[in-house]
Amino acid sequence: MPPIITLLTDFGTADSYVGEVKGTLLSHVHGAALFDITHHVPPGDLRAGQYILGRVWQRFPQGTVHLAVVDPGVGTARRALAAGAAGHFFVAPDNGLLSCLPADTHFVSLPIPPGAAPTFDARDVFAPAAAQLAIGASLTQLGHSITDAYRSPLPAPRHDGTAVAGEVLYVDRFGTLVSNIPGEQVEPGVRIKVAGTEIGTLARTFGDVARGQLVALVGSGGTVEIAVRDGSAARLLGVGVGAEVRA
Amino acid sequence: MPPIITLLTDFGTADSYVGEVKGTLLSHVHGAALFDITHHVPPGDLRAGQYILGRVWQRFPQGTVHLAVVDPGVGTARRALAAGAAGHFFVAPDNGLLSCLPADTHFVSLPIPPGAAPTFDARDVFAPAAAQLAIGASLTQLGHSITDAYRSPLPAPRHDGTAVAGEVLYVDRFGTLVSNIPGEQVEPGVRIKVAGTEIGTLARTFGDVARGQLVALVGSGGTVEIAVRDGSAARLLGVGVGAEVRA
Amino acid sequence: MPPIITLLTDFGTADSYVGEVKGTLLSHVHGAALFDITHHVPPGDLRAGQYILGRVWQRFPQGTVHLAVVDPGVGTARRALAAGAAGHFFVAPDNGLLSCLPADTHFVSLPIPPGAAPTFDARDVFAPAAAQLAIGASLTQLGHSITDAYRSPLPAPRHDGTAVAGEVLYVDRFGTLVSNIPGEQVEPGVRIKVAGTEIGTLARTFGDVARGQLVALVGSGGTVEIAVRDGSAARLLGVGVGAEVRA
Repeated sequence: MPPIITLLTDFGTADSYVGEVKGTLLSHVHGAALFDITHHVPPGDLRAGQYILGRVWQRFPQGTVHLAVVDPGVGTARRALAAGAAGHFFVAPDNGLLSCLPADTHFVSLPIPPGAAPTFDARDVFAPAAAQLAIGASLTQLGHSITDAYRSPLPAPRHDGTAVAGEVLYVDRFGTLVSNIPGEQVEPGVRIKVAGTEIGTLARTFGDVARGQLVALVGSGGTVEIAVRDGSAARLLGVGVGAEVRA
Repeated sequence: MPPIITLLTDFGTADSYVGEVKGTLLSHVHGAALFDITHHVPPGDLRAGQYILGRVWQRFPQGTVHLAVVDPGVGTARRALAAGAAGHFFVAPDNGLLSCLPADTHFVSLPIPPGAAPTFDARDVFAPAAAQLAIGASLTQLGHSITDAYRSPLPAPRHDGTAVAGEVLYVDRFGTLVSNIPGEQVEPGVRIKVAGTEIGTLARTFGDVARGQLVALVGSGGTVEIAVRDGSAARLLGVGVGAEVRA
Repeated sequence: MPPIITLLTDFGTADSYVGEVKGTLLSHVHGAALFDITHHVPPGDLRAGQYILGRVWQRFPQGTVHLAVVDPGVGTARRALAAGAAGHFFVAPDNGLLSCLPADTHFVSLPIPPGAAPTFDARDVFAPAAAQLAIGASLTQLGHSITDAYRSPLPAPRHDGTAVAGEVLYVDRFGTLVSNIPGEQVEPGVRIKVAGTEIGTLARTFGDVARGQLVALVGSGGTVEIAVRDGSAARLLGVGVGAEVRA
């Protein structure tokens, strides 16, 4: 089976950068199968990058190598990482992007090859390392193990005595507000509020409300979402990432 | 040969959704070759989705599985379909998106697996079914045959006594207005009109007019198109989908 | 190993065009591995297309076939080309898009198959030719050799007695201004100017300045770039392609 490598970046798809990374990967592993997760993470948005990677990586088969580069600090002194967790492999900057991985993740720090462009690690550091992992190199062949990878996990909800208090983690293409409150933490009959606006109790799906109506439901990522059927909750409510959600 | 699966959705490419679908497909069929048709169908625009699918599917080799999800009714009671036509296979919601397929298409209704997220059929229903088809399952192994799949074909042109009267089906990236009037239905010398503006007789190609000029021609989809050389007919004329075209 | 074909166009990703090209390629070469470089070259922007292709093609392994279609003159009398250079193959219109290739590139002029849509060479001329190259056809099996392919190379910098005078060739997603001045042509201590604004001497990387500050550095393409750390130099300076850069 050809090795699988996924790509998640904030490079956009208009420039040469994604193509240069793909070419570098294929020059190292001719038969690799490359899959774009997204290149449209908002520039430097580590929270969005971490959220998306956290939803996607376990959907791929074991053995997959995930190249993830969202890097507001590219060219600064932060380290370049490779990591392994649950049979998957990762390469990413040491800036918290991999905070979605489990606590027992094995991290190594990658050496910077001579001649690497300081502003394009994705091509000159991460792609060669991903290629090595794809052809079976072990993490410790690529770098030295570290135990202090930078972790900046997404905020967790808390119970403040009267309700579960969380926040909007992500707003998707459809304007749906995705919170960090797991569906199973919502008591039956509780009314969901977003930034002070009461949405109602949890529905099962969009189909339970009329077009243009707000609805709270447990979304496909397992947490409470606030949506507008055939519309945008973000626009209707005028709120976005960080808005308080109470359940 | 690795099985081929195409993806056509309105998910955009900024979120995790396309990646989750790809990962699910590959977890079921490790060596599958996945090809993005587009993920930029305007949200819920079944006409655009049907038009694009109708132009693309037969270009792929026989045996290809096409996963097509444009679904304003996701989470409502509409059925999930798999289909077969002319040696190709399809999975899609039962909302008319597959109306571009021939009359003798074989449709089956897919069961909804327990635990499927009602708002993400593409990942939890359609991707597993597409994977089964890709590894050789028959339609009737996946669901029970139905004869009442919802059909909502794109509008056809008619002859109203003085001219062929059609309409704009689609506006592309370049602002070209694509009509539903087949080129062979246009009599020689007939002058094309769009929303009351006379464009002229059919040219062979953009090259027949000067830059910035309007031109009517038979486009690469076989129907009459109205374009501006190096410009946008939609912007110049201020019209879009549904505008009347007479030939 | 499956043959590798890359795609670089200005078609966008919203319409059926890219899917039709992919389907055509796969119908001719079932197991081909297709890689999107970009489909977001600004419509008809031959300079941007040439710049991107020039950065990417050599990153791929030898034997790769590059399909490149940015074609403001589609449908006019310009020729369709196939080309070979340094073990890579290319198909593209004869409009200067391949000016980034070396002087000893071998060009052939492709015949136009009967029935080809004049407005969609990418599908009807270039994809079949790319497929033939991918399965081992020689250039001279596809067309007759020519020595007068249209060349329109990107502007080169010159030394005007007091400084190296170049210009902005490209502006990327991050608003970074990419010039045509090779890093090695910049004397130590020289202060970089863009459109009359002095940026300072060459830094090694973004990390050498504070967030929001302008910085000049040698970018990942080997030429002088002007960037804003975590921001857009194009927006801050209000300049774009063609702006004078002095070093």
